[in-house]
Amino acid sequence: MNPTNDPKKRSFIEVPADHDFPIQNLPYGIFRTNDNAPHAGVAIGDFVLDLVVIEEAGLFEGVGKGFLFRNKETLNHFLAQGKAVWTAVRSRVSELLDAENPTLRDNEELRQLALVPRAGVEMLLPVHIGDYTDFYSSREHATNVGTMFRGADNALMPNWTWLPVGYHGRSSSIVPSGTPVRRPKGQTKADDADSPTFGPCRLLDFELEMGFFVGTGNKLGTPIDMEDAADHIFGMVLVNDWSARDIQKWEYVPLGPFLAKNFATSISPWIVTMEALEPFRQAGPKQDPPPLDYLAGGGDRSFDINLEVAIQPDTSETPYVVCRSNFKYMYWSITQQLAHHTVSGCNTRPGDMLASGTISGPTPDSYGSMLELSWRGTKPLQLGNGEERKFIKDGDTVIMTGHAQGDGFRVGFGEVSGKILPAD
Amino acid sequence: MNPTNDPKKRSFIEVPADHDFPIQNLPYGIFRTNDNAPHAGVAIGDFVLDLVVIEEAGLFEGVGKGFLFRNKETLNHFLAQGKAVWTAVRSRVSELLDAENPTLRDNEELRQLALVPRAGVEMLLPVHIGDYTDFYSSREHATNVGTMFRGADNALMPNWTWLPVGYHGRSSSIVPSGTPVRRPKGQTKADDADSPTFGPCRLLDFELEMGFFVGTGNKLGTPIDMEDAADHIFGMVLVNDWSARDIQKWEYVPLGPFLAKNFATSISPWIVTMEALEPFRQAGPKQDPPPLDYLAGGGDRSFDINLEVAIQPDTSETPYVVCRSNFKYMYWSITQQLAHHTVSGCNTRPGDMLASGTISGPTPDSYGSMLELSWRGTKPLQLGNGEERKFIKDGDTVIMTGHAQGDGFRVGFGEVSGKILPAD
Repeated sequence: MNPTNDPKKRSFIEVPADHDFPIQNLPYGIFRTNDNAPHAGVAIGDFVLDLVVIEEAGLFEGVGKGFLFRNKETLNHFLAQGKAVWTAVRSRVSELLDAENPTLRDNEELRQLALVPRAGVEMLLPVHIGDYTDFYSSREHATNVGTMFRGADNALMPNWTWLPVGYHGRSSSIVPSGTPVRRPKGQTKADDADSPTFGPCRLLDFELEMGFFVGTGNKLGTPIDMEDAADHIFGMVLVNDWSARDIQKWEYVPLGPFLAKNFATSISPWIVTMEALEPFRQAGPKQDPPPLDYLAGGGDRSFDINLEVAIQPDTSETPYVVCRSNFKYMYWSITQQLAHHTVSGCNTRPGDMLASGTISGPTPDSYGSMLELSWRGTKPLQLGNGEERKFIKDGDTVIMTGHAQGDGFRVGFGEVSGKILPAD
Repeated sequence: MNPTNDPKKRSFIEVPADHDFPIQNLPYGIFRTNDNAPHAGVAIGDFVLDLVVIEEAGLFEGVGKGFLFRNKETLNHFLAQGKAVWTAVRSRVSELLDAENPTLRDNEELRQLALVPRAGVEMLLPVHIGDYTDFYSSREHATNVGTMFRGADNALMPNWTWLPVGYHGRSSSIVPSGTPVRRPKGQTKADDADSPTFGPCRLLDFELEMGFFVGTGNKLGTPIDMEDAADHIFGMVLVNDWSARDIQKWEYVPLGPFLAKNFATSISPWIVTMEALEPFRQAGPKQDPPPLDYLAGGGDRSFDINLEVAIQPDTSETPYVVCRSNFKYMYWSITQQLAHHTVSGCNTRPGDMLASGTISGPTPDSYGSMLELSWRGTKPLQLGNGEERKFIKDGDTVIMTGHAQGDGFRVGFGEVSGKILPAD
């Protein structure tokens, strides 16, 4: 086992067993304090380790070429360095935070500079996302939505079991957790109407997804093979792919969703590395038909990551859980998604984000969108405070959380949340 | 009339009447000479005016804040300055190149530095393109393709006449004219086959398009109205939206084209400004049904721009023209596209590219793709050298050109060309 993943390892910073950010996790983000420029940091318990301070103290000496974090407003430069550098930095950070290691623990001055309380920082987007791609890789979700949009007979299109269906998304409107989201406007058409009307979306939805970031990219014309795909992937975040179902229904044939998706996509700000997730790798669903050669191989493809969605109405202090799902339900894996994406010759760049598509499980309470949970509004959800929901109302905050459960610790993602503001 | 558009104006640099880059045009690009860093430039006849040299000579003094071009590898910073600055720079450049103005004309030393022969420069992408959106705004093209993919009865979807259908494209694989394009691989399925196969695309196609660049963007949640849309648009280029028809057919339902488009999109390197195109504005096709309010207004919506596509086989010294079309055939205008794109609240950023979709005219020789020109391969085109084409072959170079015809001059786009390399 990689020593950074050792369940017995402890930090001199106290981290409870049910905390998302123990020393086994060490996710990366970009944070800002009141007066400072954006800095790269690693979350540890209720603190951020400021990587610029650590770098300037010479504690990354010999790792990578030049400065990895200094004067960088995003993690893109670090991601571009490749797996050997990611591993070296993770090892160094893990050592520095180790309860047994005096370097940082006993250097009061450096600790004061390098460890910033998380409560006081603003989290920004961790990377500049050049391109964002959204897949559609949960069989349960594709079947549910297909049934509702096209009927049970045409639910799963013939191509679905052969390739990870995906489409290009909008990168400009990806926002970090906590950013309010304005209800979009657009055209919708009632089934019995002759013409569409313009106005605020009435069927606003979330989609529970996870996204991964390309670390090292590939050149135009040079695909990434399945055997190499894992080495190109840096880490993962939670994604809320906000969706305007009524706008989507009217616009999406034949070229796919457009305004229904491009008004906002929210992500959790801490990138959990693939190295931290390695102990939670598992086989993934059996694929039948067997994938074509270019999508085959690469070993265990999936990860056991518990996911939860809650809605907190404006009137309530409490979030109500409406969905419990798991990343392991994904039919197509992240390595298959990357291999497929690039097999045409399409290039990827450090920081590109590829999202899973809605992660629905087999049971109705594991469906990853209101569209499915309320079955197109026919089965309203009870929130527990007397309110019910078919879709998302103005003032609702949607909160997604996720974690992989280790033996005595968890590798968590924090949260992605967003509050819906009324249309202008 | 804006004096920069005066047909009588002449430069001290000689420019023949059928040349793309007279003083009435003044398109912007990013060029590189052998040893130098990328510089912004303006094309004038067979020269590039180096804007960094002009700026460092103090000749843009009082225009904009700080340096517009120095130490910038793209035009994004300039685009972000907004229309008043674009107009001021254009006026200044027009004055400096005017045959009547001695400032540059009679300064031999400055001329040597500032005027670089175009033959010796490499053209790069003019801007960093954050997001690329592709529309589908030619009624003739949508009807032709719809007829082939879905039959005559379902050719034009019900939403098509109500909104500019579009989808998000891939920005990483946008390349400047001259970049070779490798034939993509992917899954295809024959109509009578049980399962798909993997291999090189067999139905490789071009799409004749034009793209426009967002100059000043808009904030998330704040749409751009029709009345303001024109002021946000900086200029236009020619676009070849390479397409793999057999891959597209198998993958595109229900989320739209993905690998069929993301292997490469080629653009011409000179951005022709909206100001240079202003004299060629015209009404555009009548829209029936009348557009909803948020897509209405804004005056004359279209531009009279002649477009041509030629194929030059590897074995030939001559390009053979296969299509003559015109931008004026577009049903949905660029201002309608931008207003629609942002009406959801979607933000745009300086340098975002929005492309028209294939520009097909009413006659068979004006169709903007091989799919339509050869009617799905049923009517092969004669190239004139004894060869025929249904789709694009390895070694073919596809060359697109375009210009607006003025009185005694033309405002041209140069060309976008790309040669197809065999699949690996």
